[in-house]
Amino acid sequence: MTSPLLLTPGPLTTSASVKVAMARDWGSRDGAFIAMNRDLRRDLVSLVGGSDTHVCVPIQGSGTFAIEATLATVVPRDGKLLVLVNGAYGRRMVEMMRIMQREVVSMEWPEDEAVDVSLIDDRLGRDGSITHVAVVHCETTTGILNPLSTIAWTVAQHGRRLIVDAMSTFGALAINVGDVAIDAVVASSNKCLQGAPGLGFAVIRRDVLAGCASNAHSLSLDMHAQWRGFEANDQWRFTPPTHVVASLDQALLELADEGGVSARGARYARNHAVLVAGMEALGFECLLDPALRAPIIVTFLTPADPNFVFDDFYARLANRGFLIYPGKLTVADTFRVGCIGHLDEHDMRSALAAIGATLGELGVRDASPAPRQLVR
Amino acid sequence: MTSPLLLTPGPLTTSASVKVAMARDWGSRDGAFIAMNRDLRRDLVSLVGGSDTHVCVPIQGSGTFAIEATLATVVPRDGKLLVLVNGAYGRRMVEMMRIMQREVVSMEWPEDEAVDVSLIDDRLGRDGSITHVAVVHCETTTGILNPLSTIAWTVAQHGRRLIVDAMSTFGALAINVGDVAIDAVVASSNKCLQGAPGLGFAVIRRDVLAGCASNAHSLSLDMHAQWRGFEANDQWRFTPPTHVVASLDQALLELADEGGVSARGARYARNHAVLVAGMEALGFECLLDPALRAPIIVTFLTPADPNFVFDDFYARLANRGFLIYPGKLTVADTFRVGCIGHLDEHDMRSALAAIGATLGELGVRDASPAPRQLVR
Repeated sequence: MTSPLLLTPGPLTTSASVKVAMARDWGSRDGAFIAMNRDLRRDLVSLVGGSDTHVCVPIQGSGTFAIEATLATVVPRDGKLLVLVNGAYGRRMVEMMRIMQREVVSMEWPEDEAVDVSLIDDRLGRDGSITHVAVVHCETTTGILNPLSTIAWTVAQHGRRLIVDAMSTFGALAINVGDVAIDAVVASSNKCLQGAPGLGFAVIRRDVLAGCASNAHSLSLDMHAQWRGFEANDQWRFTPPTHVVASLDQALLELADEGGVSARGARYARNHAVLVAGMEALGFECLLDPALRAPIIVTFLTPADPNFVFDDFYARLANRGFLIYPGKLTVADTFRVGCIGHLDEHDMRSALAAIGATLGELGVRDASPAPRQLVR
Repeated sequence: MTSPLLLTPGPLTTSASVKVAMARDWGSRDGAFIAMNRDLRRDLVSLVGGSDTHVCVPIQGSGTFAIEATLATVVPRDGKLLVLVNGAYGRRMVEMMRIMQREVVSMEWPEDEAVDVSLIDDRLGRDGSITHVAVVHCETTTGILNPLSTIAWTVAQHGRRLIVDAMSTFGALAINVGDVAIDAVVASSNKCLQGAPGLGFAVIRRDVLAGCASNAHSLSLDMHAQWRGFEANDQWRFTPPTHVVASLDQALLELADEGGVSARGARYARNHAVLVAGMEALGFECLLDPALRAPIIVTFLTPADPNFVFDDFYARLANRGFLIYPGKLTVADTFRVGCIGHLDEHDMRSALAAIGATLGELGVRDASPAPRQLVR
């Protein structure tokens, strides 16, 4: 069975060789697998400019599991977290902290606006009890890019610590864990790294993590204990998703072969440019201003033409071998198309041709949305 | 690269077709994947004799994640859990509950003895505050089988509820969730079901689970919220390990083709009988009395001959394509050999031939252990 092309925020399209890497059973306590984990942890640290000052702690589960484990471990029980929210993933961090019964406050912006650093500066100046700040680098809710360097600089000015959800940017956009304020950057195997889904990880400052014993609320979701396990014998504390680990190992080789983070980011940027130009030519309109868009996933406003019914559009595109993604917004009626994964601009052109043909089938002549003021 | 044969308690050897099932990318919100999850959840319920009265809740991560999520969800915050401990996995449940700051007590037996039901009966009679009991069906620490039906009957007599860690028996040994006392049976994709590792699941009584909202200590590890997600749209709340799910789906087809749970259990029992007879012929001795052994994994006492060095033995066997497992015991110096996975008695004979040849290389003429009283 041929894989469809996944124009989604992940799980996404992987290369044939990444899939083949899963066609082998690994003993989870065997030397060959142990060596693979050691290499993989080292490589993930170096992708964000870390060295011996940082460690990578992989954890079983989805990215959300890694975020929860990192917040639970890195923010002390008597800490107070400020979450910068402009989408579903920021809101989810607030919810996690509440369930963990940890102190949390948030600042919220509309989903189509980046967080405003001057307001963060003001808030940190007024509330000395905030110990940590958390932000989502690219909110795949919309595809908006938050200004990470400026945020990190501001957090550092106030002597607070920053935790970054880099789920959808790690491996494609530059992140530097040397930024003084950053304690942890969290991501997963299956987005810009182009591995299979099934594990998350955090790159954490070693001296910070060393002081985090017993902070966590959970045996499974404890990044300090997980790290101590790896340090002891390079093995996972609990059964690892061996095939997924092998896929990530292969995916990291392919990232290096492509030319690293900047080359991958450049390919995604081309995908993004081709996609947006082609969609705009069909009449579609992007939700976000160009300056706010990450080259990760694009949110399009739903066409006003009543012949456009998303579920039908989706199903017909799926039959042509392209899976897109529904919207996740309250501010407008939208859908999303991803630019990441093992896809290039030719794939994007094929997708655009399929989208154009599907509009024709549906009898949608013009994919323009209703005027914005009416939509909102 | 050829996969070695994994004579381990899991991750274990999967069939070629289970591996091939991972060679496709699935959209996690696509109809085809949603249908797969619906079927898989239904099939897992029926494997343990459940029907509409029970639901299957899969969760990302290892079996330990599923155990923690199930305990956190099914035992109310004001409940009190009695854990029956005769190995590492029982001890781990106690540790989880302590970290979650839930009330927990334990009864402990030596690792080479099954739990004693008369003592449990006595304890439940004396302590009316215990609401739930948890037990590991087969402790892979040693391979010991605990008397599940008798335990369930006793727990029912006292009107308490039972949670079963069936990680290493689900799919091979009979379990009946219709047993009145059983609230939840927890297992994972990668043991007797012969899928890839990366997800766990629990089969839970529907009316019990319906009353478990907000019991959990964690957003990620909340089986009630996870269930509500599946009930709403047959989708995972957070990114699923799509390739692992597809491997489990294929593995369940192969379990049915083999003839179901009893046929699989019979194959493992043949593997077990061939293994033990062959090892005893080489002089090895089993830790456990025959009546206590599950046909899952066998613990052998380390030979007394000083030429037998486990790490060397392990490495030479690995070179011959067979991975075994170190011991995890305090009571004796041991190692373990698994009987489960995509292996038959011919594979076990090949393994025995490799073990015999390796003993020859090492200059071990007789694999007998030191007399038991000296070992302990």
